[in-house]
Amino acid sequence: MKKHRYRAMVLALLIVGVSMVLLVGSMPVLAEEKEASATEEILQILKDKGEISDAQYDALKEKAAAEQSDWNVRWKDGLRVEKKDGSIKTRWGGRIQLDWATISADDDFEAALNEAGESGTLDGTGVEFRRLRLFTSGTLYDKVGYKLQVDFAGNTVATKDAYIDYLKAPFVGKIRVGQFKEPFSLEEITSSKYITFMERALPVLAFAPSRNTGIAIGNKAFNDRLKWDLGYFYNTDDAGESFTDFANENLTARLAGAPWFRDESHLLHVGLGYTHQFRDENDENSTLRYRARPEAHMTSVRLVNTDRFNAGGADLINPELAVVFGPFSFQGEYFWVNTDAPDVDDPTFTGWYAYGSWFITGESRTYKGFKFDRVKPNNNFNIGEPGWGAFELALRYSSLDLTDGAVEGGEEQNITAGFNWYLNPSSRIMLNYVLADLQNRADVPDDDTNIIQARFMVDF
Amino acid sequence: MKKHRYRAMVLALLIVGVSMVLLVGSMPVLAEEKEASATEEILQILKDKGEISDAQYDALKEKAAAEQSDWNVRWKDGLRVEKKDGSIKTRWGGRIQLDWATISADDDFEAALNEAGESGTLDGTGVEFRRLRLFTSGTLYDKVGYKLQVDFAGNTVATKDAYIDYLKAPFVGKIRVGQFKEPFSLEEITSSKYITFMERALPVLAFAPSRNTGIAIGNKAFNDRLKWDLGYFYNTDDAGESFTDFANENLTARLAGAPWFRDESHLLHVGLGYTHQFRDENDENSTLRYRARPEAHMTSVRLVNTDRFNAGGADLINPELAVVFGPFSFQGEYFWVNTDAPDVDDPTFTGWYAYGSWFITGESRTYKGFKFDRVKPNNNFNIGEPGWGAFELALRYSSLDLTDGAVEGGEEQNITAGFNWYLNPSSRIMLNYVLADLQNRADVPDDDTNIIQARFMVDF
Amino acid sequence: MKKHRYRAMVLALLIVGVSMVLLVGSMPVLAEEKEASATEEILQILKDKGEISDAQYDALKEKAAAEQSDWNVRWKDGLRVEKKDGSIKTRWGGRIQLDWATISADDDFEAALNEAGESGTLDGTGVEFRRLRLFTSGTLYDKVGYKLQVDFAGNTVATKDAYIDYLKAPFVGKIRVGQFKEPFSLEEITSSKYITFMERALPVLAFAPSRNTGIAIGNKAFNDRLKWDLGYFYNTDDAGESFTDFANENLTARLAGAPWFRDESHLLHVGLGYTHQFRDENDENSTLRYRARPEAHMTSVRLVNTDRFNAGGADLINPELAVVFGPFSFQGEYFWVNTDAPDVDDPTFTGWYAYGSWFITGESRTYKGFKFDRVKPNNNFNIGEPGWGAFELALRYSSLDLTDGAVEGGEEQNITAGFNWYLNPSSRIMLNYVLADLQNRADVPDDDTNIIQARFMVDF
Repeated sequence: MKKHRYRAMVLALLIVGVSMVLLVGSMPVLAEEKEASATEEILQILKDKGEISDAQYDALKEKAAAEQSDWNVRWKDGLRVEKKDGSIKTRWGGRIQLDWATISADDDFEAALNEAGESGTLDGTGVEFRRLRLFTSGTLYDKVGYKLQVDFAGNTVATKDAYIDYLKAPFVGKIRVGQFKEPFSLEEITSSKYITFMERALPVLAFAPSRNTGIAIGNKAFNDRLKWDLGYFYNTDDAGESFTDFANENLTARLAGAPWFRDESHLLHVGLGYTHQFRDENDENSTLRYRARPEAHMTSVRLVNTDRFNAGGADLINPELAVVFGPFSFQGEYFWVNTDAPDVDDPTFTGWYAYGSWFITGESRTYKGFKFDRVKPNNNFNIGEPGWGAFELALRYSSLDLTDGAVEGGEEQNITAGFNWYLNPSSRIMLNYVLADLQNRADVPDDDTNIIQARFMVDF
Repeated sequence: MKKHRYRAMVLALLIVGVSMVLLVGSMPVLAEEKEASATEEILQILKDKGEISDAQYDALKEKAAAEQSDWNVRWKDGLRVEKKDGSIKTRWGGRIQLDWATISADDDFEAALNEAGESGTLDGTGVEFRRLRLFTSGTLYDKVGYKLQVDFAGNTVATKDAYIDYLKAPFVGKIRVGQFKEPFSLEEITSSKYITFMERALPVLAFAPSRNTGIAIGNKAFNDRLKWDLGYFYNTDDAGESFTDFANENLTARLAGAPWFRDESHLLHVGLGYTHQFRDENDENSTLRYRARPEAHMTSVRLVNTDRFNAGGADLINPELAVVFGPFSFQGEYFWVNTDAPDVDDPTFTGWYAYGSWFITGESRTYKGFKFDRVKPNNNFNIGEPGWGAFELALRYSSLDLTDGAVEGGEEQNITAGFNWYLNPSSRIMLNYVLADLQNRADVPDDDTNIIQARFMVDF
Repeated sequence: MKKHRYRAMVLALLIVGVSMVLLVGSMPVLAEEKEASATEEILQILKDKGEISDAQYDALKEKAAAEQSDWNVRWKDGLRVEKKDGSIKTRWGGRIQLDWATISADDDFEAALNEAGESGTLDGTGVEFRRLRLFTSGTLYDKVGYKLQVDFAGNTVATKDAYIDYLKAPFVGKIRVGQFKEPFSLEEITSSKYITFMERALPVLAFAPSRNTGIAIGNKAFNDRLKWDLGYFYNTDDAGESFTDFANENLTARLAGAPWFRDESHLLHVGLGYTHQFRDENDENSTLRYRARPEAHMTSVRLVNTDRFNAGGADLINPELAVVFGPFSFQGEYFWVNTDAPDVDDPTFTGWYAYGSWFITGESRTYKGFKFDRVKPNNNFNIGEPGWGAFELALRYSSLDLTDGAVEGGEEQNITAGFNWYLNPSSRIMLNYVLADLQNRADVPDDDTNIIQARFMVDF
């Protein structure tokens, strides 16, 4: 039996198993009675006082009930239409992120990188839409959830979240199938709407598997102080698709907790992620590659890049740490990647980053669902009463080493200074300065790159 | 005068003619008066009892009327906002269909198919998004309808329904211009949300013209027991576009009826479709091609394929038959394609399929608008009270013969066993096993392909 | 210091300056008190009459207030959800434009154009979707606006409007960043939903910069009789992106006013647009190109085309004139383009158009925001009482000269006759006849092209 078919059967059994768990847990839920509305109570009073007859009362009560809508509509981080009993929820929204950047690099350095296979301009100035997204998500008939999110930046379609949930599974919490982020790296699973710098840190860009298509389960434990996640994913292309006759899957797990938690803005977070990337050493189409842009997306040039190499797999380990204490916060992660790739001497790659942030205006980063969430300024810019929004200063150091064994992908150290201006809960202007230092990449001289970049963003 | 200009004029006259019919039928419609609300009736009572003065009554009545919204909002198979008088309706929704499949085929067989021009992997395992769609549809100012539906699967844009309706035309019922499905084949015009198996049957995949851009009319007759449809279409590309100096059109008609109809789930359906495909024998760019994937979309390999051949046109005839009797149903169609293609000896192609389905849990397939519609489980999975959703078993045989004259496209017979689990009216998990048997294709050995595939779907 | 970095700094300073203006102008806004609802007033009456106790009154009043929604929902040229206090507004909509055309041109003429680099069919008949768009726009927290609009026609993504506004900036009115239309040419900035002919006039197609990514400010003055706009844009690709190490920007301004204004349909409009296109004479990748399709989009062949030529920049000047007098209107613009391109002898290009329109049924073109807006028929087609919608006849002459210096791009004169049928405010059927006459293009014979085209459109 071919291996891909064998693994397919294992996956099928897993799905059947999960379905069983889910069936076993089927439990009755009682329907709630509706509360009387103000108009219904007025009718009751008029009847009690003898102002209206019983027949009038009954007819009017029925009419008043029929007039009452079962649905709530509002905008809150998206247009929301929700049935009052909570059984149906639907939401439509999106985001715009517009970047401006100027990047300074030596002509010789740029030429050497182009020569080494990194096509595109490194030294230049310009604009791009970093993200242009629409999404819809919701809950249907109490227990099934969905999300479909598409990105249109660069005039291409990029399917982002596209999944179906069974929301209330016994023991395993939520069962999700589709394309979504593998549970790996605090920075990666924090939405691009909420990250502190314009781009995630170098090792996150290089190592986090991000979105793939698969199945995952996850639940909270110990009084909601701990969360575990476990998923099995195909290593899909950008469209969430993979169809091969060789191994091309990831098994990923994350354990995260808050050993100290006073409130959403005073806490200690620790986490540990692990992923095994199954590949096929005997199939030349089965490869690994790790690379990263210099924490600036405007250029498509990667300063560090292992290029594709044939491999039998890799193990990634990722400890996380974060502290929030009012307006001050700290966050850091380490990444250790151990490959099984005899052709290139089984290289080991590592990386880490650490950063601190300070809200001058006193707000806090918000911690929710074991990752970071939306910052809400104490005063919106210029609304209600004189307000300036929220101001945040941040400083990050990140390091990535992709040179090991027979692979000379380069070593990069970046220092990033960031300033964020939150105009209101949905709008932010970001300004970043990045100094990117490259060393030890094959056929490329060691050199620095200077980046100034700004982002205008809104999510709606 | 060139032919394409001549046909253009005929089409223009047809449009003018239809416009005339439409104008002649202009008829007045009377506005309805609004019913008093419960609050308005309470005010009336208070006034009658002398609790409020006439002036108070008038002021409060006006205020109460102004407070009442003219609009209804809810989610029902899409977010719906509708004016209470019915003159404006708008709806936003979409669907997610995620497939997993494992396909087993001999390496030699796959290699021979690749050699024969069918690129892609046949033997493999993987996942893909079969459909990722958003749509909006509605009615504007009582008589104009629209729909725009776009598919994003595979990170490409595929325009699906994109049309404008004049909804209340005298005699001809509805006039539709734009891209939509030609009225041909019961299985084809039944939405992918409601078909019984994951993929439509072989001859439907090969022969049904599906969506093209054109103009169509259609109406019901004989107490709504019969429906006729007639359309004239450009044989457009996937984007609904065609601009040529040769004949490239289809004239398509369908007649469908329910000679026996007790209710939506007890009936006999018969139908007859016909399409003439106008092509230009004297222009080498004018061709026909019929082909089909093996009732699995994961692979892009077609087991049967006539390839493109120059032709002057083709006639397609398609009788339909379906019976629903409670939880049991049967459906079958025959296809007969007679080409006018002297270069390849005017080949004739045929195909047919037949299947039966049984709802173990007692539900029925639903018949609506002379095609099949949404299945609603008697009990949603695990909602309200212990429920399992609906379970359906189905078995299909399909046959397609694309070898005739000088064309050796192959003969394929498929047997498909299917299991459907409807969790609720919007969510379904499907499991299909397909045995596909190929014979008589030029340069390809006769061989079997085994397919196991599953689909997770939700429409919202 | 490299030039692109220097210009980047100037832009950064400009953004900082604008931010300062914006901060200085921060002003308090008072929250409004909610008016009592009809139910609340009824409760007041019942309390005054002694029918209910004070406690009952308080409880019921609170309940009635909670029952009242803060949100309005309706469809009006888009689905709109708006908070009653106006602080949040969101809108979702789109448009469908389906074209049919037949184009007649000599085979020799078509062949010569193909030879000259204009690929595609000129002589043919067919259909295409001219525009298939979805958009969402809104206001968030009173002062931030956004719009995201995407076009899917041709099964490609084309980002259209994608911007963020600061809505209430002191002095400068509105600050907009993102991709949007440069403020240049009355015809160009009038939405494709509202233009009189199917395609804009030749010189508008050739010269108007249309959408680019940048920053702009603009405000009204002199009792709203005058409007000024000023913007700085990157000359971006279709996706709104540009990243270069050479000059590639536009500085664009427009001044528009209504010296005579009786009402929306009786007025005189004058305007003056100016744009300087910064390019880099010393970089071979920095070029200009002006070209236009023959006022028909079905063919991709341009009759006139300068092709790309290296240039240091260009100045464009554009005076506008329009008169509306009830059902009659006149509109015209002149374009003067002076290039700095020594390699091709600094050519000067010009163009102009003028047209008149007459509503047989008595409606008017609507003037709003110093451009043209939606036409509303006096009677919708066949709604309420017998109505035919609105009928409009129009005639246009347009002229474009792209032959000067060493550039022989051709001279084109078009005559267009148009008929519009507005079924209701959202639906229109258009019919155009275009006679296009080409002269003096290098290697292409002088010849005429005849075009008949129709459009079916709806916006929702």
